[in-house]
Amino acid sequence: MSDVTERFAEIVGRANLLADEEIPEDYAHDEALTAAPRMPAFVARPKTAQEVAALLVAAGEHGVPVTARGSATGLSGAARPLPGGLVISFERMNAVLEVDTENHVAVVQPGVTLADLDEATAAAGLRYTVYPGELSATVGGNVGTNAGGMRAVKYGVTRHNVVGLEAVLPTGEIIRTGGRITKVSSGYDLTQLIIGSEGGLALVTEVTVRLYPRLPYGATVLAPFTTADEVLKAVTKVIAAGLTPHILEYIDDRTLGAITGHLNLDLGIGDAVRDAAAAYLMVALESRDGDRLHGDVEELAGLLLGLGALDAYVLDGAAAERLVEAREKSFWAAKAIGVDDIIDVVVPRAAMPEFLRRTEELVRSRGAAVAGCGHAGDGNVHLALFCPDPGKRRTLLTEIFSLGMELGGAISGEHGIGQTRSEYFLELEDPAKIALMRRIKGAFDPAGILNPGLLNPGVLNPGVSTDAEV
Amino acid sequence: MSDVTERFAEIVGRANLLADEEIPEDYAHDEALTAAPRMPAFVARPKTAQEVAALLVAAGEHGVPVTARGSATGLSGAARPLPGGLVISFERMNAVLEVDTENHVAVVQPGVTLADLDEATAAAGLRYTVYPGELSATVGGNVGTNAGGMRAVKYGVTRHNVVGLEAVLPTGEIIRTGGRITKVSSGYDLTQLIIGSEGGLALVTEVTVRLYPRLPYGATVLAPFTTADEVLKAVTKVIAAGLTPHILEYIDDRTLGAITGHLNLDLGIGDAVRDAAAAYLMVALESRDGDRLHGDVEELAGLLLGLGALDAYVLDGAAAERLVEAREKSFWAAKAIGVDDIIDVVVPRAAMPEFLRRTEELVRSRGAAVAGCGHAGDGNVHLALFCPDPGKRRTLLTEIFSLGMELGGAISGEHGIGQTRSEYFLELEDPAKIALMRRIKGAFDPAGILNPGLLNPGVLNPGVSTDAEV
Repeated sequence: MSDVTERFAEIVGRANLLADEEIPEDYAHDEALTAAPRMPAFVARPKTAQEVAALLVAAGEHGVPVTARGSATGLSGAARPLPGGLVISFERMNAVLEVDTENHVAVVQPGVTLADLDEATAAAGLRYTVYPGELSATVGGNVGTNAGGMRAVKYGVTRHNVVGLEAVLPTGEIIRTGGRITKVSSGYDLTQLIIGSEGGLALVTEVTVRLYPRLPYGATVLAPFTTADEVLKAVTKVIAAGLTPHILEYIDDRTLGAITGHLNLDLGIGDAVRDAAAAYLMVALESRDGDRLHGDVEELAGLLLGLGALDAYVLDGAAAERLVEAREKSFWAAKAIGVDDIIDVVVPRAAMPEFLRRTEELVRSRGAAVAGCGHAGDGNVHLALFCPDPGKRRTLLTEIFSLGMELGGAISGEHGIGQTRSEYFLELEDPAKIALMRRIKGAFDPAGILNPGLLNPGVLNPGVSTDAEV
Repeated sequence: MSDVTERFAEIVGRANLLADEEIPEDYAHDEALTAAPRMPAFVARPKTAQEVAALLVAAGEHGVPVTARGSATGLSGAARPLPGGLVISFERMNAVLEVDTENHVAVVQPGVTLADLDEATAAAGLRYTVYPGELSATVGGNVGTNAGGMRAVKYGVTRHNVVGLEAVLPTGEIIRTGGRITKVSSGYDLTQLIIGSEGGLALVTEVTVRLYPRLPYGATVLAPFTTADEVLKAVTKVIAAGLTPHILEYIDDRTLGAITGHLNLDLGIGDAVRDAAAAYLMVALESRDGDRLHGDVEELAGLLLGLGALDAYVLDGAAAERLVEAREKSFWAAKAIGVDDIIDVVVPRAAMPEFLRRTEELVRSRGAAVAGCGHAGDGNVHLALFCPDPGKRRTLLTEIFSLGMELGGAISGEHGIGQTRSEYFLELEDPAKIALMRRIKGAFDPAGILNPGLLNPGVLNPGVSTDAEV
């Protein structure tokens, strides 16, 4: 056993330190489509923040780069190990520590899955509202990527629902930020800075999340339109009407076909409507009162029909649940039909029609294809890109990301930069901001051991020269 | 004219640069009760981000500390000038650049007041929901302190309602962060880091804020209780019922007397109830539908009476508006009766009864007095402290802030640290976090020219030795 292996093993116990051949292949990747698996040199499974701190100090001393890992359901390659690196897996730090029904927060360890948290809060009539597609994702992973999902249009993304953290700095200190409070004006907001930093500033060892009352009544309306433009124009009208939908999704006809086919889901849409529809709007409403919900659904259906919807299907509980599930699993449906990449550009929601139109033109001009859906209320477009040639795909992605940024958006709304987007991010983002982010990174992590690939892709391919700073 | 005066004058024009005796006394202070006025050496009134950038570069070269200033309505001394310093006043950058009704955002210059923004958005049926007491406050100042206010219980504070910034770094670069989008996972969140940094990291030259539909129906209920504990227990019940109040305020009897007296406001509360009441809960509800509002008000009144309220006054429009106004102006009422300091500790809302009880004990043991109100839904307590002796007051504040932090809260929920709280903040906060904040400060501002007092009180009193780093 090498010195460094022994050191890590002393910290977490021999049974919780895997080295080299002991490491199962699953630790080599997350769900990013374009990040090939890469085995780490070590996997450590700590049980406490103190163990995490000791691991970081040891990694710093030995110059071992560190990758944090929840369930590795991320789509950007942020949990893909680094060459010769240490993966810190939070699988043993998976307790719901408290559901606080007075302050409406839960305190959890980072390895808790969304499914577990949902179960723990249901008993209290409360809910953690962040709802990315994959319920096996962990809260810690969601904090790393600032995960979003379908309910963000009403409740916001991870950033808006995490109020406190315990985090370990790369220099070994354990700090607490925020708390069971939703407002603080006492120094820089370290909570918000760590959220979305993809394991590059500090490792989160405890998370305090906001909970909301679980509203008992819900309904889902699916409205087919003959053009995507009509769908997207309806989005603003639904929001301006004050209906406060908690789901407001755009789904194009190809994607609806793929996801309903993937789950064998029959929504009762007749052939004539299906043939005429180019895109669908899915709207879910919820209420604490059944009569009010009924009134809202009627108003919504009338509004959509007035805006050109071919119909407005009010889905019953089971069909609605399965459609939401199908939408959640759209990534898997896309993967199953051989998609080459998934894009999650975010633009101002009024810019979605232009973004989709110009993206379609770009894609066609390169002989590629896209199908899509998206969190329409948030301007967050998910496009499945079919373009097998890597060189052509790189060009096309650069063009699509540039377009999104030109329209006032960003490369990723919720998937993150990770290892698969860092070259684009560094190429397209303002150099003054990149330089500032590198200085902030240095303020947390002077040795550059925490997931350094985001701002320094050179570490991903050692030996290839780069002028990037850590 | 000295070299540096001339340099600043060249940037903004001679008419917009005030030096020494030309400076009106108003620039010497904000509204903090315990920060004595201090004249700056210069006041510059730039018109563009480029002028702000040039001012910062010049200030950096000449070692002149810089204080950003909106309307200077802040309560922490963050806009109090530094010795020999430059005040950059945003009074000429006061345009509402756009009210975007499709994306539901407004783009404004930092010197726009909340009153102006409210007027500009009203025409579109939209609203910027952040509502601290003082409508002459500027959006830029609110960004600096992460201002809160009464509507935060439903809509969040400034941090939750600012989606994009243009900001000038102390090194002279102009960057743009975020945009007309509510979710981004593309690098560190610079928007959130700059918000609440009290002009210490970057100067904001444009702000993009979220807008919400302006709901047409509203009602306010005032409920007297015989104890403060009952009021605070009712808070959680109101939230858990899903009534989503947009105002949920605790007001003790002394404070209600002071603020209604200050405005000559008769709420129609009979003598018997007034004599029996120790504290009041003020709840405002809003709806897009008059019948629903009526139903919610009935449910709320029933709930409060069931929880021990002595009565539940449903205030008519004019009385409700005047009560909200009176609550807004409570600072002025407190100032008028000679309060010595205003505390805005935030604690988990369930900890409010313990915080108030133990604070009352501390205050009594020192021969001082407090009266209070607070944003009860957020655990943000506002206490008017009567304690004229500075030494005793310092001890008492240290004890009260320690208590708040011990209960899981922070020194300030919305007023900020500024110059009046920095000594307490540096004494009570975790040294590892202070050191990290100083490194972050250094990443933005290597020369330490932007409002350096927050983390380095030594600059406030030059000549007094300090071991603090910049």
